[in-house]
Amino acid sequence: MKATPGLPGEFALIARYFAPLAAGFPGAYGLLDDAAAIAPAPGHELIVKTDAIVGGVDFPVNEPGDLVARKALRVNLSDLAAKGAVPRAYMVDLMLPDTVEEAWIAAFAAGLAQDQSEYGVHLIGGDMSGTPGPVTIAVMALGEAPAGRIIRRAGARAGDAVFVTGTIGDAALGLRTLQGALPGLDGASAALLVDRYRLPRPRVTLGPQLIGIATAALDVSDGLVADLRHLCEVSNLAAVIRAPRVPLSPAARAAIAVDPALLEIVLTGGDDYEILFTAADTAADKLAELSRSFSVPITPIGHMAPPPERNQAPVAVLDEAGQELGLTSEGWTHFGRAPQ
Amino acid sequence: MKATPGLPGEFALIARYFAPLAAGFPGAYGLLDDAAAIAPAPGHELIVKTDAIVGGVDFPVNEPGDLVARKALRVNLSDLAAKGAVPRAYMVDLMLPDTVEEAWIAAFAAGLAQDQSEYGVHLIGGDMSGTPGPVTIAVMALGEAPAGRIIRRAGARAGDAVFVTGTIGDAALGLRTLQGALPGLDGASAALLVDRYRLPRPRVTLGPQLIGIATAALDVSDGLVADLRHLCEVSNLAAVIRAPRVPLSPAARAAIAVDPALLEIVLTGGDDYEILFTAADTAADKLAELSRSFSVPITPIGHMAPPPERNQAPVAVLDEAGQELGLTSEGWTHFGRAPQ
Repeated sequence: MKATPGLPGEFALIARYFAPLAAGFPGAYGLLDDAAAIAPAPGHELIVKTDAIVGGVDFPVNEPGDLVARKALRVNLSDLAAKGAVPRAYMVDLMLPDTVEEAWIAAFAAGLAQDQSEYGVHLIGGDMSGTPGPVTIAVMALGEAPAGRIIRRAGARAGDAVFVTGTIGDAALGLRTLQGALPGLDGASAALLVDRYRLPRPRVTLGPQLIGIATAALDVSDGLVADLRHLCEVSNLAAVIRAPRVPLSPAARAAIAVDPALLEIVLTGGDDYEILFTAADTAADKLAELSRSFSVPITPIGHMAPPPERNQAPVAVLDEAGQELGLTSEGWTHFGRAPQ
Repeated sequence: MKATPGLPGEFALIARYFAPLAAGFPGAYGLLDDAAAIAPAPGHELIVKTDAIVGGVDFPVNEPGDLVARKALRVNLSDLAAKGAVPRAYMVDLMLPDTVEEAWIAAFAAGLAQDQSEYGVHLIGGDMSGTPGPVTIAVMALGEAPAGRIIRRAGARAGDAVFVTGTIGDAALGLRTLQGALPGLDGASAALLVDRYRLPRPRVTLGPQLIGIATAALDVSDGLVADLRHLCEVSNLAAVIRAPRVPLSPAARAAIAVDPALLEIVLTGGDDYEILFTAADTAADKLAELSRSFSVPITPIGHMAPPPERNQAPVAVLDEAGQELGLTSEGWTHFGRAPQ
């Protein structure tokens, strides 16, 4: 038994900080039961996703509790959004080393509360445990979508346009900024990029609107090129995108102006939590309207192409002159080597 | 990026070991998508539960992968069973230190495969991540039950009998055996107790049969006395149980014969994963029939009583003479001190 000096017991912590987050969701039973009950609306199915984040791997070890909580939740909501699901509830497993103080847990719960208001979700279950390792958080998010209508990764057609929401590369540049690797960047740009790394903005309201328009979709978490490759592989197609069309924030443009080599980080760095999707060219008007209604940039960056030849990479990234960029890495992967 | 020498990449590991576990569940999309889709049968709702286990806290750090996997899954299935839910699917987040070898992961997946056959569940999602800490596994289990019919913790009535399935205390004694704290015990008994600690036997087939019979239920994970206290608290009642009626395995009896003080470990030690439930005395015949049909012992151990007086503990454990046992601890808790 790991007793943590200074912390109240597990049940007191749940009652104090987490049970209030279950209020308003009857099937959560106030977190006083062993499990929660949830049913999709008629004609809908539940869409479920889990993603865990680890201190020192996915977020800095000294990160405040509220930001850690919101990042853990949001990376999961981002996947639901990319599938067109409306988020409804989530569960959290929280593994804490004995160095964590109650104030950190209070901040963690406050971060969840803030995002519950923002995204209309409720905490319906979870687990707390001690760990000799770093703070580790596993979130399971539950959303709903019309039955059989979620936007799959498979489903793209040759000739479909490739779109991406928002801007790409900010989070990856933000991580490099935190690591001190972008010393020449102005302070305002640096702050914007770091903020994008620390706090993803999942496209929760836009995502469900893409049902019936997008032929395939996923969220950009491993990196634009790697995630487009995932989409190509399951759709059995290739893709050609044009680097100059990839939407960049002014801060990312400033960083690339200082060091043009950062373009590769932008294209492959990951943690964007934007939606990458394919749709017919004819959907462009409808997408422009959605972009205006939801104040989310939606940018065409290329096209899907017939299946790649043997030994041909499925994703080609072209520069302004139409020449293929040679990228040394395609994106984040845990374990082993990132594929070339 | 934590590269783990010798391990294939994350996606290769998923394709090799985990995607096969999703076969047969269409909404899992072969683990090739960002999320899974699941809908309850008509008239049913989904029952969801998450519990995480941490190396060095919930299982020994050198435990084989298959046992770790099965324990992680089973502790969750146990909660579903105690609610009367039929398990259908689960997701797994697997956090691995870089000392883990591929053979361990292969064993982990093989353990899941074995339990999928045993319990009729499918893997429908998950996440793999590196960690500087110990092996950490978060499981989210999804089951289904007739809408509004799950067996809650709240719902017991004064006068209801208190029942427990199987035998109590084996796992807690098994842990002490592993720790070398039961040196006088015979080898066969020691092996049985250790096995009960390492591999819970959730009452998955019996649990759903208790809907309509049990007035309240939960699984015994924190310890018999602590879990009965949880049930008392949410039902706003007290309970009186008789220690001599608590069902013990021959191995537990052998251990207590060597050291009678171990009775307290049995009553408070936890990790039993049996179902503790309340029901009217008149349900005894029906329960005896279920016990025979499912080959699961179901033993009455006491009764629910009116709400406790102020300053009175909600659970009284009586000895053979009807005297209250003075227990120094009520059961496992993470953080802080176990309540007296």
